[in-house]
Amino acid sequence: MAIITLLTDFGTTDSFVGIMKGVILQINPQAAIVDISHDIDPQDVAQAASEVPAYYRYFPDDTVHIVVVDPGVGSDRVVLAMRIPGHTFVAPDNGVLSMVLQDHLQMETAIVRVTNERYFRHPVSRTFHGRDIFAPVAAHLSLGLPPEKLGHPIPPGEMTILTIPRPRLLENGSLRGSIVSVDRFGNLITDIDLETVLRYFPDVVWNSIAFTAGKRTITGIVESYSAVATGQPLVLIGSRGFLEISVNGGSAAGLLGLERGDHFTIRSGNPGNAARD
Amino acid sequence: MAIITLLTDFGTTDSFVGIMKGVILQINPQAAIVDISHDIDPQDVAQAASEVPAYYRYFPDDTVHIVVVDPGVGSDRVVLAMRIPGHTFVAPDNGVLSMVLQDHLQMETAIVRVTNERYFRHPVSRTFHGRDIFAPVAAHLSLGLPPEKLGHPIPPGEMTILTIPRPRLLENGSLRGSIVSVDRFGNLITDIDLETVLRYFPDVVWNSIAFTAGKRTITGIVESYSAVATGQPLVLIGSRGFLEISVNGGSAAGLLGLERGDHFTIRSGNPGNAARD
Amino acid sequence: MAIITLLTDFGTTDSFVGIMKGVILQINPQAAIVDISHDIDPQDVAQAASEVPAYYRYFPDDTVHIVVVDPGVGSDRVVLAMRIPGHTFVAPDNGVLSMVLQDHLQMETAIVRVTNERYFRHPVSRTFHGRDIFAPVAAHLSLGLPPEKLGHPIPPGEMTILTIPRPRLLENGSLRGSIVSVDRFGNLITDIDLETVLRYFPDVVWNSIAFTAGKRTITGIVESYSAVATGQPLVLIGSRGFLEISVNGGSAAGLLGLERGDHFTIRSGNPGNAARD
Repeated sequence: MAIITLLTDFGTTDSFVGIMKGVILQINPQAAIVDISHDIDPQDVAQAASEVPAYYRYFPDDTVHIVVVDPGVGSDRVVLAMRIPGHTFVAPDNGVLSMVLQDHLQMETAIVRVTNERYFRHPVSRTFHGRDIFAPVAAHLSLGLPPEKLGHPIPPGEMTILTIPRPRLLENGSLRGSIVSVDRFGNLITDIDLETVLRYFPDVVWNSIAFTAGKRTITGIVESYSAVATGQPLVLIGSRGFLEISVNGGSAAGLLGLERGDHFTIRSGNPGNAARD
Repeated sequence: MAIITLLTDFGTTDSFVGIMKGVILQINPQAAIVDISHDIDPQDVAQAASEVPAYYRYFPDDTVHIVVVDPGVGSDRVVLAMRIPGHTFVAPDNGVLSMVLQDHLQMETAIVRVTNERYFRHPVSRTFHGRDIFAPVAAHLSLGLPPEKLGHPIPPGEMTILTIPRPRLLENGSLRGSIVSVDRFGNLITDIDLETVLRYFPDVVWNSIAFTAGKRTITGIVESYSAVATGQPLVLIGSRGFLEISVNGGSAAGLLGLERGDHFTIRSGNPGNAARD
Repeated sequence: MAIITLLTDFGTTDSFVGIMKGVILQINPQAAIVDISHDIDPQDVAQAASEVPAYYRYFPDDTVHIVVVDPGVGSDRVVLAMRIPGHTFVAPDNGVLSMVLQDHLQMETAIVRVTNERYFRHPVSRTFHGRDIFAPVAAHLSLGLPPEKLGHPIPPGEMTILTIPRPRLLENGSLRGSIVSVDRFGNLITDIDLETVLRYFPDVVWNSIAFTAGKRTITGIVESYSAVATGQPLVLIGSRGFLEISVNGGSAAGLLGLERGDHFTIRSGNPGNAARD
């Protein structure tokens, strides 16, 4: 049973996604197609790029992941197939796979510039490569086609990489992170994990580490939402392994007035750093 | 072919649901996963509880139903597996299965408090049991694992039960019911079926039974929307077997200004009850 | 592997769609069910009718397509099964299959008025034929049931056909077309393909053909979005084979203030037609 996942900005009102599934099933009638989301904001490559590492690792070996957020469709932008251990991705070369690439050693990663039109649907339109290129290429991969049949290997350095703002230490000694995404519950997912905290603050005091987000400062990292009273904000290690700012029984995005791309700061909580803090 | 259904409040923008499907397919690659809805209002246990009885009975025997509306995730709330004839449910113990339990005799129902971590995904997070407990447990059940392997049986009396407002007779002799849900068309699904009407009004006159909802009174029960003129309100037996207040070609919720949780009243329509009516 | 597609106006918040899938899987546990969309505007038959031809042809042979946009449910409206080469449709007889019929020769098309209650779910409600008629009938068809077992053949002339506004030549010599749909990106899909342009304007000059939509006039047909600067409007041949009015990196619906049902005009761009233009 071959699995193909779909992440797009096509929405679910139009029949774009249904059409892609029809094309896949014409080539591989046994494919199990799993929708991740079709509600990426239209043409928001950065949003898709930050979502991909959140889900792909939970799928079985040999899953093929299609990512179609493709503002450059019809231009001369390249189509990529990228294989890492256990997973193959098909996507436009616009940075949408940046974070998957960064998580893997170069020697583990094989990237192919997809040019072999034999595996495309014809005629190839200039506006819907989801139907004409990504779906049929993924279907052929799900049947066992080796990615190198799709075109020519390229080194990772030739792939388009998004420059993603990284956490950085401010002059006053606090660490600045970003809100990477906001989920349906209003939880604010950040770009900082415990390793990063320890790298910057080897002497961190977990009970008094302080997060300033919007106009609120939250002290300490807790284990679950219920560690604080209903309606109160908190910080915990979210299911992605990164710090999340949440509100027990409520929306942190609402309470703190924050959205994707906004910043917050962390102080170590170590009194020895008081001058810095 | 094992079937697993999903009802959650996760929405379809984030990748929570996709991740659960990946985890299920890692354990049971043959599972057919059916989305019921992911648009339960965030953390609205009562809404999910009233939706479950609407769909589960339409699935084949041996279907496993996952219900994840779980404001208590990460606290000490219990995880349940519940088996009734033909169907097995996996859900947090927060009342979300109340109505399924009420529809079945105690002797038909087997409830297990799920504690056997062997069937969980590890490490178990404190914020996403959909991924770490509900999905893997359901996948194992879909492979034929007996529920009793998951933990210890508990009596139904130990399950959390929601107190759901029941229809009741008012002093003036009319019967008061509630709007249980409002569907996409603005139909108002109530908590009163024909049996209940007959129990309270054995001498009901079907042609002149009167429903007062918002500022309108509707007389009689009709067989289909088209029994009244376009734009007019009506009452019929809906597809769930309960009375529904509708508008032919329109929205009853809009016309009558009602929403979930609002009340309406019924008078029997029997002139012998005029004093009461 | 039998494939069944679903196009409805049921939305994805209620459990209507999940219930239909349960009913299908009870009859054909091997069915692969593909959601096209459940977000057709409530009871908007014309919208569904224009969507059907956009997707069905991309599915493998023997696919069964369910279309349930059914304001007449429970009235005496007829249920149809329609077979064209490779595809079978099940839908209410309200015009929703008009455009599929128009695309096929009468001799290629077999239409059956569905009356054989043996293939229905019982009792048949008056409000949810998706569950009680369309789903079970489609499931039986997906198992190989010949459509003629479902009832009696009728000639195409007995089917309900929507009168769809056709492009027409105005007195000033320009051609008037309509916006058939607006996709998630704000692209305006029209009802005019290149053949139609050539039929009305055999001497068209592709570089100077002029489209007037809202307050803007767009000159020429381009090959892809990137042929114009970001934020600029353009006209191209869309993925359905019809002219689409788009904005590179933006929304044509937003820029031009147009929606479904609005009109635009085309002038041939041939100076020999200047008097007409």
